[in-house]
Amino acid sequence: MTQSLVQRLQAELDAMWLVDPHTHINPHSAPSQTLADILGYHYYTELAHAAGIPRERIEEPGLSPREKVGRIVPGLAAIENTVQYSWLREICRDFFGFQEDRITATNWERLYDQSLAVLSAPGWEREVLQRSRLSGVFLTNDFDDPLTGFDTAFYIPCLRTDDLVFRLWQPETRERFQKATAEEAWEVTSLRRGLAELFRHFLAHGARACAISLPPGFTPSPVADAVVEPLLGAVRHGRALSTAEQGVLSKFVFWCLAQECAQARLPFDLMIGVNRRVYPAGVYQGQDLFDSRCSLLQYGELFNAFPQVTFPISVLAHGLNQELVSYAWIFPNVVTSSHWWYSNIPAYIEPDLRARLQAVPQTKQIGYYSDMYKLEFAKPKFGMFRKVLAKVLAEDFVVGRGWSETQAVGLGRTILCDNTERIFPKR
Amino acid sequence: MTQSLVQRLQAELDAMWLVDPHTHINPHSAPSQTLADILGYHYYTELAHAAGIPRERIEEPGLSPREKVGRIVPGLAAIENTVQYSWLREICRDFFGFQEDRITATNWERLYDQSLAVLSAPGWEREVLQRSRLSGVFLTNDFDDPLTGFDTAFYIPCLRTDDLVFRLWQPETRERFQKATAEEAWEVTSLRRGLAELFRHFLAHGARACAISLPPGFTPSPVADAVVEPLLGAVRHGRALSTAEQGVLSKFVFWCLAQECAQARLPFDLMIGVNRRVYPAGVYQGQDLFDSRCSLLQYGELFNAFPQVTFPISVLAHGLNQELVSYAWIFPNVVTSSHWWYSNIPAYIEPDLRARLQAVPQTKQIGYYSDMYKLEFAKPKFGMFRKVLAKVLAEDFVVGRGWSETQAVGLGRTILCDNTERIFPKR
Amino acid sequence: MTQSLVQRLQAELDAMWLVDPHTHINPHSAPSQTLADILGYHYYTELAHAAGIPRERIEEPGLSPREKVGRIVPGLAAIENTVQYSWLREICRDFFGFQEDRITATNWERLYDQSLAVLSAPGWEREVLQRSRLSGVFLTNDFDDPLTGFDTAFYIPCLRTDDLVFRLWQPETRERFQKATAEEAWEVTSLRRGLAELFRHFLAHGARACAISLPPGFTPSPVADAVVEPLLGAVRHGRALSTAEQGVLSKFVFWCLAQECAQARLPFDLMIGVNRRVYPAGVYQGQDLFDSRCSLLQYGELFNAFPQVTFPISVLAHGLNQELVSYAWIFPNVVTSSHWWYSNIPAYIEPDLRARLQAVPQTKQIGYYSDMYKLEFAKPKFGMFRKVLAKVLAEDFVVGRGWSETQAVGLGRTILCDNTERIFPKR
Repeated sequence: MTQSLVQRLQAELDAMWLVDPHTHINPHSAPSQTLADILGYHYYTELAHAAGIPRERIEEPGLSPREKVGRIVPGLAAIENTVQYSWLREICRDFFGFQEDRITATNWERLYDQSLAVLSAPGWEREVLQRSRLSGVFLTNDFDDPLTGFDTAFYIPCLRTDDLVFRLWQPETRERFQKATAEEAWEVTSLRRGLAELFRHFLAHGARACAISLPPGFTPSPVADAVVEPLLGAVRHGRALSTAEQGVLSKFVFWCLAQECAQARLPFDLMIGVNRRVYPAGVYQGQDLFDSRCSLLQYGELFNAFPQVTFPISVLAHGLNQELVSYAWIFPNVVTSSHWWYSNIPAYIEPDLRARLQAVPQTKQIGYYSDMYKLEFAKPKFGMFRKVLAKVLAEDFVVGRGWSETQAVGLGRTILCDNTERIFPKR
Repeated sequence: MTQSLVQRLQAELDAMWLVDPHTHINPHSAPSQTLADILGYHYYTELAHAAGIPRERIEEPGLSPREKVGRIVPGLAAIENTVQYSWLREICRDFFGFQEDRITATNWERLYDQSLAVLSAPGWEREVLQRSRLSGVFLTNDFDDPLTGFDTAFYIPCLRTDDLVFRLWQPETRERFQKATAEEAWEVTSLRRGLAELFRHFLAHGARACAISLPPGFTPSPVADAVVEPLLGAVRHGRALSTAEQGVLSKFVFWCLAQECAQARLPFDLMIGVNRRVYPAGVYQGQDLFDSRCSLLQYGELFNAFPQVTFPISVLAHGLNQELVSYAWIFPNVVTSSHWWYSNIPAYIEPDLRARLQAVPQTKQIGYYSDMYKLEFAKPKFGMFRKVLAKVLAEDFVVGRGWSETQAVGLGRTILCDNTERIFPKR
Repeated sequence: MTQSLVQRLQAELDAMWLVDPHTHINPHSAPSQTLADILGYHYYTELAHAAGIPRERIEEPGLSPREKVGRIVPGLAAIENTVQYSWLREICRDFFGFQEDRITATNWERLYDQSLAVLSAPGWEREVLQRSRLSGVFLTNDFDDPLTGFDTAFYIPCLRTDDLVFRLWQPETRERFQKATAEEAWEVTSLRRGLAELFRHFLAHGARACAISLPPGFTPSPVADAVVEPLLGAVRHGRALSTAEQGVLSKFVFWCLAQECAQARLPFDLMIGVNRRVYPAGVYQGQDLFDSRCSLLQYGELFNAFPQVTFPISVLAHGLNQELVSYAWIFPNVVTSSHWWYSNIPAYIEPDLRARLQAVPQTKQIGYYSDMYKLEFAKPKFGMFRKVLAKVLAEDFVVGRGWSETQAVGLGRTILCDNTERIFPKR
């Protein structure tokens, strides 16, 4: 009976259209062109690599898409147990009509051809959006993205700021900054003017969020202009900043961004906890990890200083979920946001979601984002979340608390659909 | 079948009378006087505030109880999903006969009037205790509480020591200390005599525990008298202590309290992990949070130094539960104690309880305390715990290990009722 | 239906023969001789002690086995809820034919006699191996173990290196090292030659792993020979090393061991997170605990430096499991290994296993080892794991993902049996 209850709730959740509030979609090339775009998703390359396929085989320069797929396929047998593989299987079955359980040396070329026919058919982008019930897709845009040539009402710009905070001292970043803002940023005032210009540009193109990913050791705090001026001067004169000086500049730029968000009334997505390049010999995008020794206490000063800024928080470590729940439970401007990366498996989604639904106001929870690079992944990833959500709604609310199914579905809609519109309002 | 098994077990657990081993009840005014006492519980004010009600509206000076309720009600819709809201609903339904699912702008005044009739009826205190099956209630008494004017056999005094350990250098605390003990505490001997006097006073009035809440960074260790004398001298002469000096004095007083507990054979409740005033703009009692980066290793020296003192340990962070289980598993004087505050939701109670029942001697587990400020909360809060306990007993012991239901209920009684008497014995 | 599905899967898993990839078995005396060997397992002595039996009673010198059992039995009532007690009950019931639920003051002597008859019967070692379906048992051998006098094809040697890394400066360790290797190790070259000799010796006797347990604060890194020479010189001249110097020497020896493993193509089992002697007054082997504040980031440099060494990782803290999953998910040479000690209870095995099965390649998971000291414990400990494994396979794979039961059983066999052979290959 519970099982059929879960299925009924899931069917209701599956029927809902929604806006995906965080992706890495390239709006100029949103769907996959070949199966290589799908199997090239870092989840498959890194898992296949971890299971024994050398990086050099997977990433050999000049591989055709078909060759690349052929190189990854031998790594799939070892990862059939993973939930990431189940996304792949769902894509192959539901989109490409591939009915076999396994993708093997003997059948992958047939799959490749089938998928190619689907992916290259005219109207596939519209169709995959339709079948995934997506009514909007948030992007992750470099600060110097012109934001032109696509429908910004559907593909919604977000200002991604990692480069500004963590690489502003690099010549390449400075050059991009100068081009994008016409500011040299050799002094604080120029830097601030440039940042303001970026926000103007993004807001003019319908941006609905500013976003950044942060290492576990980062602790935001304000930095005085006078402390930063000599650092910018050093950069100007080509003197390399020490790690400590870089840290100071990072904090400064971060705080400026929060000030701009306050000014612009733009939510500031914080994705907390990633250590970059822990495994530098890993495949592309398969080199980053995390450190559980992190606390949202590091963000206490920030949350207090910017009560007018909404901070949707994603935590990489499952162990931080209780802090996130507790901070969102008392701070009006802290919002829980999805289940990120290494926490994006049902084993962690379920307990994390359960705690959020039990203790965070329902209006302050962004249920899920796909984080996808290609449109085909929205359906299986949201599907995974919807399934867990249906289970928790059934067990904790319908059975556990005597809610009607209608009420439970309503709560599901709130966190899956409505809150995205509420928390990232259109201008 | 499992569901009806759970219900049978829960019915048995619900029927048990028990002593609530930790509350903040004021024995001179134990039940709520109006609905404002119930909706004014920090869980509702902080959640409503987090959901958007300004603190100033909730805490405006001079509000009548009715007005105060009217200010909080608009915040309830957003928190209907929370387990804390389910306590409120249960109180309204079971105590006040309010049948509606939701408390809204249009029905709250009726609820207010209904509840007022119940709460102001003569004998309500006796009735709510009866219906909550409470046979005793532990208090949280300031060190200078006279402990008179109430039945200390039912409302059991506990010496709360946060002020002594963390605020002894403040003039107000010193004045209270001097009044309560007739000791100036300008020297270590006087301080020690004063502390001994407090224990005598509390023991004379039937106290059954000493208690304190501690920040995540606290690490108890002994401090030599000679180190403390100059600090007390500084306080005497009005010199402000540095943070480091305060820390030394805190450790010293804490260690003295443990010595007094050893002398008095009084259990020392440690509630580990709260950071005070992380969100200073929050509502009253809705400003504190925690930091997961904490370990019971910080208490190793204490547990070793005082084998004759029982330490019932509450941890604020779910992430510390495994350490707590493991420490209680090998240290005879470490006892697990309830599910505290941010860990007091089924999402964390269930896994934490499961681990304790699987690996800590059954005689060393205090199943639950309500932590309530008003009597009406014992029933829904213990009810929530009993429900989780019934589930774990059913799944892990009856189904999982083939125990009889009688055995399982017996284990439930041990941790819910018997251990409180065993661990905090009457004198 | 799910319940009977779980039972069917469990029956299949129960039927599988396997090699136990980590134990503390003494191959010269592998089964228990009396019930004292069983009740003397530290799980029972430490839990009974934690429940109130004084250490001095349990460990009084000169106790006969029967007396020792008589001393521990009074502590059993308090720990009947623990999963460790359920292992004991299973042993008593299944091996000794003892049908009573409880072991009490009035029946234990009968149990003692029954068990003695079984344990002293000729062929018991063969029988208990048969009934436990063990086709091989990994040992934990001191570095100076001669490795003779037993069948190393069945009782498989493993080089345990804690003494080398953490006690090399102690005279007793040096003496053993000198005897075992004919090297004085007064200089780095001699130390390295000695270590190489140990590996030669172990490999010659069929060793299939090198192993070590590590404290939570340990962070491996390479140390230059020139830094170590003066430390070895100091040891030679009887100067005590400071804690910091010991730490440097530990790191050096550890790194040398990793180099030897690379040379020998031997997996290096890392058991991460134990603090020794946190409770020095505890019973034998019941004094160690852990500190959750630990991260696999501490091992990043090691994993990168030795891509050719497989590191099966056990973590003591449940809170580290997500890091372990994530590291195994991208690092080819990181393998998840069993559920260790304080994490070896179903409350932690289930969520940890669930995450591993969802996100780590199936070929990189060592499902379980018993860690036993006496053969009788393999059956109940593996039985506990098989039960949890059956539940997770049923819920997540058969029901959750629509796998056939055959597929699910296959995944179970991979992590329970096949991977041990794959990851620790015979030479």
